[in-house]
Amino acid sequence: MRADAERNRSKIIAAARSAFADPQAEVSMAEVSRRAGVGMATLYRNFPGRSDLLEALYIDEVDAICAAAETLEAETPGAVFVAWLHRFFAFIVSKHPVGTELLKHSEGKVPVMGESRRRVVEAGRPLFLAARRAEQVREDLKFEQILDMIVAIAAINGESEYLEPILGVALDGLLPGTFVGRRMNWRDSPG
Amino acid sequence: MRADAERNRSKIIAAARSAFADPQAEVSMAEVSRRAGVGMATLYRNFPGRSDLLEALYIDEVDAICAAAETLEAETPGAVFVAWLHRFFAFIVSKHPVGTELLKHSEGKVPVMGESRRRVVEAGRPLFLAARRAEQVREDLKFEQILDMIVAIAAINGESEYLEPILGVALDGLLPGTFVGRRMNWRDSPG
Repeated sequence: MRADAERNRSKIIAAARSAFADPQAEVSMAEVSRRAGVGMATLYRNFPGRSDLLEALYIDEVDAICAAAETLEAETPGAVFVAWLHRFFAFIVSKHPVGTELLKHSEGKVPVMGESRRRVVEAGRPLFLAARRAEQVREDLKFEQILDMIVAIAAINGESEYLEPILGVALDGLLPGTFVGRRMNWRDSPG
Repeated sequence: MRADAERNRSKIIAAARSAFADPQAEVSMAEVSRRAGVGMATLYRNFPGRSDLLEALYIDEVDAICAAAETLEAETPGAVFVAWLHRFFAFIVSKHPVGTELLKHSEGKVPVMGESRRRVVEAGRPLFLAARRAEQVREDLKFEQILDMIVAIAAINGESEYLEPILGVALDGLLPGTFVGRRMNWRDSPG
């Protein structure tokens, strides 16, 4: 029975996530019940209100991005950090509608959001520090500045084909400066 | 008399601009009159309403960023383009409060704003194309994507010391790719 309940809960969350990812879908409780293949009674037993479901969905996505910080593998610390920033970007883009709904349904008081930001920052910081120690990330930015940059780019209005190259610019710009001389020329250029 | 009138108008616009740049200032017509050293009658003769003044201020800033595209000098087309993007960034940061006020006073209908965006894009595009022809800007972004990136960074919450390094990352990332190999490694990294 326990396992069954777990499975239902997972199905509901997965269904809600796919509904939110579908720009055509109107994400009602009925729609989530239909997509999950569970009855309304089961749905409401798990999530008494729509905002409970939204919050669970939000936390589930935060869990995933935090877990990725521990499991991502790549050849260098810089590559791990950049791979995680790609995940973080996808996370921001995907959680946006959920976050917006959550705010709408909670009159602006969503403690889980502030708490989530702290958790994500904590999870990602070791990757940043390792990349920094390996001298694979430039030194003039704090971790928070990098995250704010990614969040700002994720908020640009456009499809992912439009946003991806912009993200690429930002990530390439994080490389430490063999280009420092040239950069300085630009900065000091007259006018 | 003509020259006098011109001078008053310039004084008023300069005073309004400095008032908006001062986070402590409350930008009333009386405050602008005081800062400009012109009487209220003169102020109202030039700008019958507050929104006329805001619009003039906005257009004045757009004129300046467009003019900069023609007068900026630097050693290479890439350096000219990047210098202009720096100006564009400063323009976006500085016009933000004026734009916000203008929207508030105009019930969302501000034709001058759409028109201004078109003018700025037109003014900057030749610099972008020249830098591209000189192979000093990477090839996978359109000009509009670069502008959207700068606008997004300018909108990040923080003082200019916080924002400048983020802008630096973005501008350095625009350099064409001697780093392409490395970048590809990152993109393809497992996980």
